[in-house]
Amino acid sequence: MLRTHTCGELRISDVNKTVSLTGWVQRTRDKGSLLWIDLRDRYGITQLFLEEGKTDASVLTAARGIGREFVLKVQGIVVERISKNDKLATGDIEIKITSIEILNSSKVPPFTIEENTDGGDDLRMKYRYLDLRRNSVRENLMLRHKMAQQTRIYLDGLNFIEVETPVLIKSTPEGARDFVVPSRMNPGEFYALPQSPQTFKQLLMVSGFDRYYQIVKCFRDEDLRADRQPEFTQIDCEMAFITQEDILHTFEGLVRHLFKHVKGIDMPSVPHMTYADAMNFYGSDKPDTRFEMKFKELTSVAQGKGFPVFDGAELVAGICATGCAEYTRKQLDELTEFVKKPQIGAKGLVYVQCKSDGTFKSSVDKFYSADDLKKWASHFDAQPGDLLLILSGEKAKTQKALGELRLKMGDLLGLRDKNKFSALWVVDFPLLEWNEETNLPTGQAGRWHAMHHPFTSPKPGDLSLLDSDPGKVRANAYDMVINGTEVGGGSIRIHDRATQQLMFTKLGFSDEEAKKQFGFLMDAFEFGAPPHGGIAFGFDRLCSLFGGADSIRDFIAFPKNNSGRDMMIDTPSTISQEQLKELSISVNDLKK
Amino acid sequence: MLRTHTCGELRISDVNKTVSLTGWVQRTRDKGSLLWIDLRDRYGITQLFLEEGKTDASVLTAARGIGREFVLKVQGIVVERISKNDKLATGDIEIKITSIEILNSSKVPPFTIEENTDGGDDLRMKYRYLDLRRNSVRENLMLRHKMAQQTRIYLDGLNFIEVETPVLIKSTPEGARDFVVPSRMNPGEFYALPQSPQTFKQLLMVSGFDRYYQIVKCFRDEDLRADRQPEFTQIDCEMAFITQEDILHTFEGLVRHLFKHVKGIDMPSVPHMTYADAMNFYGSDKPDTRFEMKFKELTSVAQGKGFPVFDGAELVAGICATGCAEYTRKQLDELTEFVKKPQIGAKGLVYVQCKSDGTFKSSVDKFYSADDLKKWASHFDAQPGDLLLILSGEKAKTQKALGELRLKMGDLLGLRDKNKFSALWVVDFPLLEWNEETNLPTGQAGRWHAMHHPFTSPKPGDLSLLDSDPGKVRANAYDMVINGTEVGGGSIRIHDRATQQLMFTKLGFSDEEAKKQFGFLMDAFEFGAPPHGGIAFGFDRLCSLFGGADSIRDFIAFPKNNSGRDMMIDTPSTISQEQLKELSISVNDLKK
Repeated sequence: MLRTHTCGELRISDVNKTVSLTGWVQRTRDKGSLLWIDLRDRYGITQLFLEEGKTDASVLTAARGIGREFVLKVQGIVVERISKNDKLATGDIEIKITSIEILNSSKVPPFTIEENTDGGDDLRMKYRYLDLRRNSVRENLMLRHKMAQQTRIYLDGLNFIEVETPVLIKSTPEGARDFVVPSRMNPGEFYALPQSPQTFKQLLMVSGFDRYYQIVKCFRDEDLRADRQPEFTQIDCEMAFITQEDILHTFEGLVRHLFKHVKGIDMPSVPHMTYADAMNFYGSDKPDTRFEMKFKELTSVAQGKGFPVFDGAELVAGICATGCAEYTRKQLDELTEFVKKPQIGAKGLVYVQCKSDGTFKSSVDKFYSADDLKKWASHFDAQPGDLLLILSGEKAKTQKALGELRLKMGDLLGLRDKNKFSALWVVDFPLLEWNEETNLPTGQAGRWHAMHHPFTSPKPGDLSLLDSDPGKVRANAYDMVINGTEVGGGSIRIHDRATQQLMFTKLGFSDEEAKKQFGFLMDAFEFGAPPHGGIAFGFDRLCSLFGGADSIRDFIAFPKNNSGRDMMIDTPSTISQEQLKELSISVNDLKK
Repeated sequence: MLRTHTCGELRISDVNKTVSLTGWVQRTRDKGSLLWIDLRDRYGITQLFLEEGKTDASVLTAARGIGREFVLKVQGIVVERISKNDKLATGDIEIKITSIEILNSSKVPPFTIEENTDGGDDLRMKYRYLDLRRNSVRENLMLRHKMAQQTRIYLDGLNFIEVETPVLIKSTPEGARDFVVPSRMNPGEFYALPQSPQTFKQLLMVSGFDRYYQIVKCFRDEDLRADRQPEFTQIDCEMAFITQEDILHTFEGLVRHLFKHVKGIDMPSVPHMTYADAMNFYGSDKPDTRFEMKFKELTSVAQGKGFPVFDGAELVAGICATGCAEYTRKQLDELTEFVKKPQIGAKGLVYVQCKSDGTFKSSVDKFYSADDLKKWASHFDAQPGDLLLILSGEKAKTQKALGELRLKMGDLLGLRDKNKFSALWVVDFPLLEWNEETNLPTGQAGRWHAMHHPFTSPKPGDLSLLDSDPGKVRANAYDMVINGTEVGGGSIRIHDRATQQLMFTKLGFSDEEAKKQFGFLMDAFEFGAPPHGGIAFGFDRLCSLFGGADSIRDFIAFPKNNSGRDMMIDTPSTISQEQLKELSISVNDLKK
C-alpha cells in the first residue's frame, strides 16, 4: 500500500509516529510562514502542515503548487495539535510533513466537493465521479452496502440460498413494458430483461430450493416519473411449505433486523391492517402511520339536514386536526385550494372549528345547528381547540382526497419526522382491479388486471366470487408499508395448473397466449409444485428510507435521469450499421 | 410452517416425537402389509412407513395412490429403525405415519430424479426445474451460494464496499460483441449490457471509494463455444493507492480464504511466474502446475547432427514422462497421432526411451548416437524407465503443441487429480498482441490489440519500446491460474489522460472515436485520479473448479444452451409488432 494509515485513522496515541498518507486535497491555507493542507480520503480528513524554515524548502515549494483535489502521497510525523478540532475524528493531531509526492494533479472541479455543493443537478450527474466524492453521497452508498450485508446475514442465517436467476429472459406483455435485447444468433428473436425474477423463483420452489433470495437488478421500460429508474434493485425472496403468516413473520424479522443493525433502532412488531381498513381509515393502501388522524365517517350523522352536497354524497368523512381550531381564514382557504387541485380532486372542503370556549364555527353553519356540530365533534372525539376537516362525494375519490389532506396536515403539524419509523403490513388486497383503458383482444372495452400479478392466489373462500363479483375477490397478498411508502410486497402464489389457467382466462389471456408465455410454469405445476409464496422489497427505496431521503437517486452510484439517460457516459447512443446488420434489425426512419 | 422438521433433521434422539414433514416422494415400496415412502426435501431424505392393520385404513389407501414426486405433508411419530441405514443422516429413524395430506400430485417426470438420471441433456434443460431437484445439481448451487458468502465475508472484512454499477450502459466496439438494448425514449439509440463494469469501477476509484467489489452479471454476445454462457458472473474488484504486489497479496488471500472456508483446504502461498517462463516451461499462459514435467530446451544440444527436422527448427524442446519408457509402439503411435491433430499442429513426435538397463531407444537413432541420447537424458534429468517426448519447429507453435502434449501425458499418468489444487500467479503479460485479422479504419491489414484491455498500464520501464517494438512492452497485468484454468485476471490501470490517449492511439482509435467512447474516463483522469488496479474472477468457473467439475453449466441455475437459448422458457422469441414500433426498430427481412 502507498500509505501506512488512512486519513481517518490517526489519534493522539499515534503522536511521534512516522506515517504515510494518501488522499485528495480538500483545501489548503497558506499563512506565509505556515501552510496547512486538509487531506481527504474515504475514511476521513487529516490536517497536514508545513513550516517555513523547518520544512525542506523544496517540499514547501511543491506544496505551494498544489490545488484542490490533487492526489498526494505524503510522509510526516504525527504531532499533537495546539488548537484541536473536536468535529474531526483526527482533530487532536496533525502531520508535520517531510515529503510530498503529487500522485496526480487535478483541474479545478466544476463544483465544490463539499456538503453544500454549488453544483446543480445536471452538472453533478455529468461529473458523477466527483459528486461521489462528497461525504453525503458516499455515506448513502455505504449505507446501501451495509443494508445489503445485513440482509444477507439475516437471510443466510435462516437457511435461505442466494440463487442468481437469468437476466436474458422472455418478453411477456403482462405488466409494464419490457426492455428487449435482439439475439444475433437467433435472427428476428429477442430476449427481454426481467421486470422481476418472479417465474424463476417460483420454479426454484418447484425444484425444492425451499428458501431463496437474491439482491437483484430488475428493469422496467416505463415513462420515468420523478424518482423512478429504468433499472432498480430488489431484495427478492420466496419460501415453500409456508402460510402467509410465516412469510409476514419472516420478513417482518428482516426489516426489524435491518433497523436494529443498520440504524440501531428497536422496532416493535409490525401491525397488520386489511386493505379495506387502510382505505377506510387512511384513504390509501400505503398509509403513513407515524401519526393517527384516522378518518371518521359522518355519512349517516351528517345527511338529512338539507345540505345538498352531503345529502347527495356516497361518503361523508373527515379528519380531526388536533389544535388547529384557530387556523386563520387564509389557512383554511389554502387547505380548500389544496383539496381542489386536480391531482387531489375534491369539490370543496367543509371545516368545523371546535373553539376553546366550547362553541363551534363551521363553513356549513347555515345547515347545521350547534347541537349537530357538537354531535360531529363527539363522533370525532374532538377536543376544544381541534379542527374538523370534512370531504364528501363518491366513496373512493373522497377517501383518496381525504388521504392526501391527512398527509398535508401531517406535514403542517410536523408529524412526519424522517427519523421516526412506523411500519405496517397491509393485507387482503383485492385480487383484481378493473382497468377501463385496456381492451381485450375481442375489442371489449376495459378488462380485469391482476392487482399484484397473475401468479397471486385468491383467498380460497373468495374463489366462488370470481365469476359473480371479481372485484370482491381478495388475494393472499400483502405489502409492507413504512412511513407511507410501500417498501415491499408479495403474495402466496397459485401452485396448481387449473387455478393458474383460470386466472389467465380471467385476465383475458387466450389459452394459446397463456401457453406461449407461461406454459413452462403451468407445466412445472404438474410435476409436484409445493405451496409457496414470497415477497420483493424495493432495495433502492428501502435504502433511501433508511437514509432519511426522499429521492432514491442518491442511493444509486450511477443513476439515470428522467429521460433514462446516463449523463456521465452519455448513453443511450447510436450504434454502428455493422452492429445493426449483425443483429438483423434496422432503425426506423425517425423523421416519419 | 407446514412442517415441524425438515427431511434431513431427525435423529435417534428425536424418537417418540410427533412430527410433521413436507417434501417430495423419492420412492415408495409396497410389501403388502408394510408400505414405505422415502420423503425428500432440500435437507435430506426421511423414511416413512405405514402398516396394514395399524395405520388408519384411509391413510393407507391415500398412501397407495401416491406416485413419484408427489408433494406430501405427513404427520407421524419418530421411531427407531430396525435395519438402520448408515448412508443416510436420518438413517437411524423412520416415521410411523398417522396422516397424509397430498399437497400436490405429480405426473411421472420425464427422467428420474436420481444421481445417475436417465435424462439426456436437452430433456434436463427443458425441465430444468426437475433437474434442479437432483442432489448433485442442488449441491453445486449450494456451493455457489457458499462461495459468494465467503467472498463477501473476506472482502467486507478488508473494508471493500460492494457497489452496484449500471447494467444499461454504452456500446463500445473494443473487445467482444455487446448485447444492445433499444431505447424507446431515445429513438434510434441503444444501451449496451456490460461486458464488465471496468470503466465504472475505475471511476469509483477516481471517486475515492478506495476498495470496491461486486459479484456481478456480465454479458458477451459471442459465438458460444462449449461451456461459454452469454451471461456470466464476475467477482469484480478494484483498489486504489496500491502496488501490483498489494493486489496479488489481497486476492491470493481471497482464494486461500475460499479454499479454507469452502473446502477446508489450507492452500500454500501462491507462487508467481512470468508470462515468459510460463510459455517457455509449460507452453501456456495458464499452466497446470499440479504436476511438474517442465519443458527442457534441446535446441543447441540436438542441432548439428544432421537431423534436418531439428536443424531447421527455431526450437527443439521436450518433456520427460516419468516411468513411460516401456510404452508400446501403439501407445507411441497414438501420441504421435495426438500431436499431429490440426488443433495441436505438430508435424511429428520424436521419442527417446530410457530403458531400465541404461540403454536408449529413440525414433531418431539414425541421426543420434547412444552418447548423444545419453546427453539428452542427462539434460532432462531423466532416469532409467523414463520417456522423452520431443517436438520442434517454430517457437510459439512448438511451445503450444508441447504444452498440449504435456497435459495429455498428465492425464495419462493420472497427475491431474480434480481434488488436488495448484494455484499460481502469471505476471508480466505482454501489453499488446498483434491480430492479423482485424484492420485499421485506414485499411491497413492487422493491428495491435490490448492483450488484457486498453486500460492496462505498461510497465514504466518498457514504455520506451511502445514505438520501436510494441510486442515487447510488458504490462502490469496478472492472471490467477488454478489447475490450468485462468480463474481471474487483472491489471494496474493507467490513471493519467496522456498515457490513456497514447494507448488508444496505439490501438488504432482516432482521437474522435476515443473521445466518443471513453471521453468521460479520460476527463475523469484530469480531476485527481489515484493510482489504482484491480482484478475480476470468473465466478462460474471458480465454482465449477471448486466443485471438481469441467462444465460451468451445472453451477448456473438456469443456463443457456450453445445457441444462447433457454430451452425451458423457450427464449429468445419473437416480440409483437407493437413492441417493435414503440422501439422504433424493425426486423430485417430474414429471407434476404
